[in-house]
Amino acid sequence: MRYDFGSDNTAGMAPSAVEGLARANAGYARSYGSDEITARAADQIRQRLDADAEIRFVFSGTAANAIALSMLAFPFEAVLAHNAAHVCTDETGAPGFFGQGVGLIGLPGFSGRIDPLALKAQLAEPEVGHRQPPAALSLTQATEYGAVYTEEELRHLIEPVKARGYGVHMDGARLANAVAAGFDLKDIPRLGVDVLVFGGAKAGANCVEALVLFDKSLARRLDNRLKQAGQVASKARLLAGPMLGLLESGDWESGGAHANLMAKRLAAGVATRSPYVLAHPVEANTVFVRMPAEAHQRLNALGWACYRFDDGSVRFVCSWATQAEAVDELIEAIAGLN
Amino acid sequence: MRYDFGSDNTAGMAPSAVEGLARANAGYARSYGSDEITARAADQIRQRLDADAEIRFVFSGTAANAIALSMLAFPFEAVLAHNAAHVCTDETGAPGFFGQGVGLIGLPGFSGRIDPLALKAQLAEPEVGHRQPPAALSLTQATEYGAVYTEEELRHLIEPVKARGYGVHMDGARLANAVAAGFDLKDIPRLGVDVLVFGGAKAGANCVEALVLFDKSLARRLDNRLKQAGQVASKARLLAGPMLGLLESGDWESGGAHANLMAKRLAAGVATRSPYVLAHPVEANTVFVRMPAEAHQRLNALGWACYRFDDGSVRFVCSWATQAEAVDELIEAIAGLN
Amino acid sequence: MRYDFGSDNTAGMAPSAVEGLARANAGYARSYGSDEITARAADQIRQRLDADAEIRFVFSGTAANAIALSMLAFPFEAVLAHNAAHVCTDETGAPGFFGQGVGLIGLPGFSGRIDPLALKAQLAEPEVGHRQPPAALSLTQATEYGAVYTEEELRHLIEPVKARGYGVHMDGARLANAVAAGFDLKDIPRLGVDVLVFGGAKAGANCVEALVLFDKSLARRLDNRLKQAGQVASKARLLAGPMLGLLESGDWESGGAHANLMAKRLAAGVATRSPYVLAHPVEANTVFVRMPAEAHQRLNALGWACYRFDDGSVRFVCSWATQAEAVDELIEAIAGLN
Amino acid sequence: MRYDFGSDNTAGMAPSAVEGLARANAGYARSYGSDEITARAADQIRQRLDADAEIRFVFSGTAANAIALSMLAFPFEAVLAHNAAHVCTDETGAPGFFGQGVGLIGLPGFSGRIDPLALKAQLAEPEVGHRQPPAALSLTQATEYGAVYTEEELRHLIEPVKARGYGVHMDGARLANAVAAGFDLKDIPRLGVDVLVFGGAKAGANCVEALVLFDKSLARRLDNRLKQAGQVASKARLLAGPMLGLLESGDWESGGAHANLMAKRLAAGVATRSPYVLAHPVEANTVFVRMPAEAHQRLNALGWACYRFDDGSVRFVCSWATQAEAVDELIEAIAGLN
Repeated sequence: MRYDFGSDNTAGMAPSAVEGLARANAGYARSYGSDEITARAADQIRQRLDADAEIRFVFSGTAANAIALSMLAFPFEAVLAHNAAHVCTDETGAPGFFGQGVGLIGLPGFSGRIDPLALKAQLAEPEVGHRQPPAALSLTQATEYGAVYTEEELRHLIEPVKARGYGVHMDGARLANAVAAGFDLKDIPRLGVDVLVFGGAKAGANCVEALVLFDKSLARRLDNRLKQAGQVASKARLLAGPMLGLLESGDWESGGAHANLMAKRLAAGVATRSPYVLAHPVEANTVFVRMPAEAHQRLNALGWACYRFDDGSVRFVCSWATQAEAVDELIEAIAGLN
Repeated sequence: MRYDFGSDNTAGMAPSAVEGLARANAGYARSYGSDEITARAADQIRQRLDADAEIRFVFSGTAANAIALSMLAFPFEAVLAHNAAHVCTDETGAPGFFGQGVGLIGLPGFSGRIDPLALKAQLAEPEVGHRQPPAALSLTQATEYGAVYTEEELRHLIEPVKARGYGVHMDGARLANAVAAGFDLKDIPRLGVDVLVFGGAKAGANCVEALVLFDKSLARRLDNRLKQAGQVASKARLLAGPMLGLLESGDWESGGAHANLMAKRLAAGVATRSPYVLAHPVEANTVFVRMPAEAHQRLNALGWACYRFDDGSVRFVCSWATQAEAVDELIEAIAGLN
Repeated sequence: MRYDFGSDNTAGMAPSAVEGLARANAGYARSYGSDEITARAADQIRQRLDADAEIRFVFSGTAANAIALSMLAFPFEAVLAHNAAHVCTDETGAPGFFGQGVGLIGLPGFSGRIDPLALKAQLAEPEVGHRQPPAALSLTQATEYGAVYTEEELRHLIEPVKARGYGVHMDGARLANAVAAGFDLKDIPRLGVDVLVFGGAKAGANCVEALVLFDKSLARRLDNRLKQAGQVASKARLLAGPMLGLLESGDWESGGAHANLMAKRLAAGVATRSPYVLAHPVEANTVFVRMPAEAHQRLNALGWACYRFDDGSVRFVCSWATQAEAVDELIEAIAGLN
Repeated sequence: MRYDFGSDNTAGMAPSAVEGLARANAGYARSYGSDEITARAADQIRQRLDADAEIRFVFSGTAANAIALSMLAFPFEAVLAHNAAHVCTDETGAPGFFGQGVGLIGLPGFSGRIDPLALKAQLAEPEVGHRQPPAALSLTQATEYGAVYTEEELRHLIEPVKARGYGVHMDGARLANAVAAGFDLKDIPRLGVDVLVFGGAKAGANCVEALVLFDKSLARRLDNRLKQAGQVASKARLLAGPMLGLLESGDWESGGAHANLMAKRLAAGVATRSPYVLAHPVEANTVFVRMPAEAHQRLNALGWACYRFDDGSVRFVCSWATQAEAVDELIEAIAGLN
């Protein structure tokens, strides 16, 4: 089975991440995040965001998102998120686990973008004691369906939420792909995002995400919080090292750009060479193709791992590692399905 | 500052772990633990334990222990553990977080070993509705004070607990050091341990521990449980790779043996060259020295990172990476404090 | 404002409940549920169910339901329930709070009855690690929309669930109304329900519900569980006393029958005297009327408290206390709205 | 068995509470706390405290305390409390359950009073990431051993805690007894207590406690919080009615005074007529007697329910209902044990 396009996580670490890990591994260092590698990696991220944020490196995006949401909403409150958001569909209820029952209110919208009118309608709902009212908004950039919010789109979602005093979380598992699509990282603090999960794993690192708190009041005893949640690395430099390698080399950005380019190549090939239709605009690193079940099965039988999504289309994911030849082979395979 | 002896986590990955990681990183692989590296690493552990256990690799010993305890005790129950156990003193209440308030009942005993009489007395306490009665026993091998339980000692602790139908957890963060001290891994399932945390990080891997379930009924939807708890690695092979490297090379064992040897060298040096007394027998990789506060401060001022523990003694930790020369330098430094 | 029809909880205690409370209040008694009143009330329920169940009296239906579900599903699992079930819509996420994030999977069906085909389809979904798979079914008898399941309907829902080893919970907040509609309480254990919440408050007691465990393995340290959850009454006889009064007098049944009769009278009046249509068959004590927003507002302005439900209809609730004259007054008022 | 002195909860409701309940029960009323009885009972408490606090009535002191602590400390923090405090010893870990693992740090002190030096020492402990640092102080007035803090004693405990920005909770399960001993309720807000549990059950009501929030920022979506926690009464007037009866009649105070008087009578009798020594000064409604196990058993065998406490003494509790004759009978019984 070929896993090239099966998921963002089927590729390993990028070379600069491996080098960053090797450098970080040398000699002795303080544990639990008090080391120099961790400090430098956090600085790299702060520079990109142009913000004096509190930053910690954690193992898992699921945990990072869930912990972020638990900072913004009490258990008797809820978080507004797209129906298709990773926090709603792919994290086995982690927000409820870390947030002691915190609710999720799903919102509709094309290609994973929250529809601002649906958000507005939800915010206008009267509060009652027997429901979990919203306390925060969760945004995903790029979205699960490969869309990239513009700064203006984000502002229209964030402003009414902040006006009510609610918090804003951004799941940036594919943030590098959003940046490659033209999104400016500095807009994140400017727009009022409170907590960002700055993606590492899908960008070519090991399993690492940066939890970025712009609002420092949320950081009360953050190290205790993360330790209790099993998200403090004892050998923290090994967590931060690959991220540092990606960031110092610029591969965090160039890998995202490469992945997007490969996705466009794949999309163009499918559109021109196959009878199948793209289910979503291709703005980042994922390509969703509407194809019959039998075509999908035949493609799997040909050795290409790929999965059907909740919208019924089949997803193909590109990464820093995707090779143009593989894209072309896949296009051939899809074109030949009929 | 020299961190050689400050903690088990100040050393990086051992060479065989780095090689294991590099091998694991090549090409594409299925994510979330369905890869071959993960399977092989689990097999290595099963062979050592001679048991058909369910095994998963998680990021953090804190999480591994807390999740294990949440399998054995309900929130309205408690876990019996040594007062000085990591779960009681060093995990920021993670058992209560993962276990929704599960209680801990601290037991005394020399050098981190639970006193069987204290355990017996606790088990004899009448149950009342307004307290959290025990449902499980947590053991640490080797203990936080560097003691290694014999098979017989463990049996005397485990038998009365199993007789009541309670579960048994073993924190094996320093299991490699216990093995080097003569402990037989195959005794773990034989004695009736239900859940083992098989240590990787302190043994020379990256941040990885294996969660080993001998009782498969505890494994109900284990992948969902771990995913929700933020302990499933997307790029799972990068978690298992270093562990596989250590295990296939035998460095998991030889690193533990080296660490113990270095600890004995340090202990002998302190005992013969300094006026300070060892606080605990040195059976594994840690050396605890009774020294006045000023001596401790002077040692820190000389550049040696080391910490005072709850029993008032100062701890020195050896690892796979400890060099004999560094031990001798430290002995000189301690001998010269007076 | 007249609250006669606003909710099940706007009426006070029925006379036999008040008498039961007065009798229970005399003299001294053991606390925390070890008293004779509590024992007798539990016996009354066991007799009606013809089952040797573990029974405890708790304060709140929300807590009773949530605790019941936490017995049947782990945090990383989910409970199947009707979209309109109280546990889904009216308990502020209590199942997630008590169940540490346990999920709810909403199912459709007319008048609050779960559609067996929808259930079957959900049970056929493949399990994946990143979702919360079902572990239990929650049924409501009578439903939130006043429907009463037949024994056969329940069997068609329960059998496929039990066949998979999942648990079954029944929310019986309006169980007395279901009984008055012909439902046989003895079917509850016969059908394989594991945990029943036997309603007291809506039946004319104070705030009390009985938690009934048919599967005694679920009752492990039940008193500790309830104490920790804040659901053990210190003066337990005051909780059980009104329930005992209702049960020994037969008013639990006759009050339910009276409420249903009043609902039928109201429904008949609305159907024949007003232009408005009933939204659901009237099988228990609630009447749902489709009326325009202005008509609803005028009715409120006339002093009749009543609320619009999620299905868009306006709900009227009858109870043990409802007077025929009040029903007729309300019919007049509704008839005169046009 | 005679339960007169076994616990605070063996007596029923006081006559004025029963009358308050009967009055509250008449007719229809809005549910979930929006009724007039609830409002009036809250007003009574606000007047006594001379503070514009948010007040809700809940079922259980265990829940009230645990919810209060969950407002003041995050799961990764801890609450400072006396070792013998109800929250530490008698609530089956409810603070950890409601507070998702929040820790408790036990402090020593005579007769249940926290020793200010022990508090100071604890506050001076350096914070580390792997422990749960304190975020709040929990005080009990009167204490579990029948002591009543003076305003000055409370100030010495509260001031250093507030100086660090930590919160303060007061468990007032026996507050009426403290008031009868001279404690001024108006000192509670003046001293900076953030959350008070104003006791009802032990004062002669049904199972009801008032949760009093002086700091309104803690009351964010309080009704949602309590609903989710199973602590909102549907028929709320039945919860508030007995409390209102006690408060309007002044029996809340006079009942406390009577209980204290009876305790003093008992203490004097034991001191002068028996060979047994009082274990604690008798300042409120409880009497602790040091007696050998055989004497205790003989007393039980004579039909007097009473329990041995953690300090080894035997507790006798007086209430609004205690009769002087019963006290004298008990004194005779104790005097005759030898």
